[in-house]
Amino acid sequence: MNMPAAFRVIDVIRKKRDGEELSPDEIEALVRGYTRGDIPDYQVSAWLMAAFLRGLNRSETAALTEAMLHSGEVLDLSDFPAAKVDKHSTGGVGDKTSLVLAPLVAAGGLIVPMISGRGLGHTGGTLDKLESIPGFNVNLSIARFREVLKACGCCMIGQTAEIAPADKKLYALRDVTGTVESPFLICASIMSKKLAEGIDGLVLDVKTGSGAFMKTEEEATFLAELLVETGERMGKKMVALLTDMDQPLGLAVGNSLEVKEILQVLRGEGPEDLRELCKELAAWMFVVGGRSTNLAAAKELAQELIQSGEALAKFRQMVELQGGDPETIDNPSLLPKAQHSLDVLSPQAGYITAIDSEAIGRACVMLGGGREKKEDSIDPAVGIVIHKKVSDRVAHREPLCTIHYDDRPPVPLEPSFEFGDSMPVPNRLIRRVISKIPVG
Amino acid sequence: MNMPAAFRVIDVIRKKRDGEELSPDEIEALVRGYTRGDIPDYQVSAWLMAAFLRGLNRSETAALTEAMLHSGEVLDLSDFPAAKVDKHSTGGVGDKTSLVLAPLVAAGGLIVPMISGRGLGHTGGTLDKLESIPGFNVNLSIARFREVLKACGCCMIGQTAEIAPADKKLYALRDVTGTVESPFLICASIMSKKLAEGIDGLVLDVKTGSGAFMKTEEEATFLAELLVETGERMGKKMVALLTDMDQPLGLAVGNSLEVKEILQVLRGEGPEDLRELCKELAAWMFVVGGRSTNLAAAKELAQELIQSGEALAKFRQMVELQGGDPETIDNPSLLPKAQHSLDVLSPQAGYITAIDSEAIGRACVMLGGGREKKEDSIDPAVGIVIHKKVSDRVAHREPLCTIHYDDRPPVPLEPSFEFGDSMPVPNRLIRRVISKIPVG
Repeated sequence: MNMPAAFRVIDVIRKKRDGEELSPDEIEALVRGYTRGDIPDYQVSAWLMAAFLRGLNRSETAALTEAMLHSGEVLDLSDFPAAKVDKHSTGGVGDKTSLVLAPLVAAGGLIVPMISGRGLGHTGGTLDKLESIPGFNVNLSIARFREVLKACGCCMIGQTAEIAPADKKLYALRDVTGTVESPFLICASIMSKKLAEGIDGLVLDVKTGSGAFMKTEEEATFLAELLVETGERMGKKMVALLTDMDQPLGLAVGNSLEVKEILQVLRGEGPEDLRELCKELAAWMFVVGGRSTNLAAAKELAQELIQSGEALAKFRQMVELQGGDPETIDNPSLLPKAQHSLDVLSPQAGYITAIDSEAIGRACVMLGGGREKKEDSIDPAVGIVIHKKVSDRVAHREPLCTIHYDDRPPVPLEPSFEFGDSMPVPNRLIRRVISKIPVG
Repeated sequence: MNMPAAFRVIDVIRKKRDGEELSPDEIEALVRGYTRGDIPDYQVSAWLMAAFLRGLNRSETAALTEAMLHSGEVLDLSDFPAAKVDKHSTGGVGDKTSLVLAPLVAAGGLIVPMISGRGLGHTGGTLDKLESIPGFNVNLSIARFREVLKACGCCMIGQTAEIAPADKKLYALRDVTGTVESPFLICASIMSKKLAEGIDGLVLDVKTGSGAFMKTEEEATFLAELLVETGERMGKKMVALLTDMDQPLGLAVGNSLEVKEILQVLRGEGPEDLRELCKELAAWMFVVGGRSTNLAAAKELAQELIQSGEALAKFRQMVELQGGDPETIDNPSLLPKAQHSLDVLSPQAGYITAIDSEAIGRACVMLGGGREKKEDSIDPAVGIVIHKKVSDRVAHREPLCTIHYDDRPPVPLEPSFEFGDSMPVPNRLIRRVISKIPVG
């Protein structure tokens, strides 16, 4: 990549401020200079605000993604014979699909090199969930990551310092300068990290609804299309599913509680919505990985891999390879358990018409199950298990959910449930599919 | 001023980003925190870009001005019996009116506590012009500033560290983050420094045209109205004159050359446009200072103070009090003189239809008469003296201007002049007056 003849940061800030298009070279020089420490925070934050307010077009978004991706190491997994695929979710309450998908898709013969994040705000993080398994190590070196992938086809780790350092630095700056919620910056952040995994295809689970970052379907669609087009520009097979987050996914919210739930799903049990979404996402992972061209057949394959126990065996193998105690897989009661529990009783009889997912997510954080600041430590055992979901009928004083808590007192959760006299029509779990891949 | 209960910079950035109005308390907390060093550059630069793109309303602009003003010392000149007035120009090529106005208006009995800036870019600075007088000291303490004011009614110094430190810090940040050219930020910057002088009234000379920062009359009017209204909100008598900067003001461009020209004006000689503008501005200073309610009478007073020699005597007194050599006033040939001169000859016969002021200003900088960076030193002797202005007739090979130069070679200036066959109608020097003060 050629450095523009006389690159001056101030010109790039002014151009974006005035709504002009930046060249890939200008964006590359900005990202490279910032990552190296040659360009100071205060110039980049002015640029970020200009980009936030003026927006980036497709070409600029792709250039930003590319520059951030190449700021660090990009894994080369070309020595693996099978296709490499991953899934990324924009984050929701009770969203634990990654823990099902990695072993399930690996059991189907694809490679799943999954690099995940921690929870921040009202949504949980995959790494925090995995760490509730005693001994599980998410901080593997890239060399060990490859070994685990070789051995079992999937591995789940945290972001290393080598992966997209530009994103790490830019995200920290966005966080303190009010420039997080830009779809263009979100897209570059997500895609630069995911593409650093050396994958061939990516399935995006873009959450929309009251418990998601994107509250409206319109916002979610905008981001989903941006993500898909950006990935396609970079030669990847892409699909985005717009999925409902108007109520928590599954029943469990809280780290070890969610691990217990995914173990149920891997046994062919567990909540219907979670099982359905896992199968749908797994099927699309098989499609983007070229394992299948027929979606119905791909879903059936997922179902078979669960029923045969292969998916669960794969998870057990990965846990063991990453230092986790495999006993907990066979006997989930060995997972961390909170000292106290409290049933939240329904103040009235009727149908559940809505559940405030964000309130449930925040309650989990307040119990110590998530973090408000990066430095906060986590209590893996606490959380909420929901008993009644939208459209369910509940009797007066019947338990709505159970709060599992340790030192921090339970939070009143009655107001998070809404009631009605007639059964509401629930939202479809999968609202839209955005993809250019032909499927049968 | 009360600190908002739980002030968080990020909230103030987000509010401005989303186009919401900030409270005076929020703006005060932002400016105070930044000046103290509690808020980092990178958050303020994001806020500046949001303010640049979203704009500030009148109340926010006044609050920002007030907060910046009170970040430092505000002079209390209430012990002076006469009204304190000043003039501020947004900057133009050949604009040397301050050097005439301070002694002229002081000779009329008002106090002119003038704190000025240095030149940057293609326009010159008052301090640089004054410093071409051997010995002239613009770096006086506030105590000495008061003494000089007491002794002769006017004093001209540079900005001290005590005056509006928030502006100094914010301006440096704006300069490197592409946030200079916002009328709202410009207004707060100008007014916070000028009101720190402890003045009762201010005359603004807002330049418009090819040689000014505000190229269009629309932009200039917007800024002028903003400045006037902001000053009025703070209880000051305000007037703004929109004046033409489509060609340089007067004939001389360059520091000692301009001092020679103002000495002519103070003797009742010199270029017509400069003399006219000085009288107009002086008259308005007499009006805002309550010395006169009739503009025509005020202009006559200015004329009399020049003809009687009182204005020149006042300038001589001020120069002496500030350490300058008073001999140079009586004998301007003692002022710094360039070693070489070169006449620029007209490539054709005709009428001058336009002069590129910005090119003339830049040529002066290239000769060493101005600075491109703050650290650059200045050659006081170099510059350009124009012989033909717009509407003048010129013969083939008649001199258009003379370049006075030392070490750095002269710059071709023929292309800065445009020619036509018929005499153009020149722009009016004073395009608009913006004021609510009733005048006869």
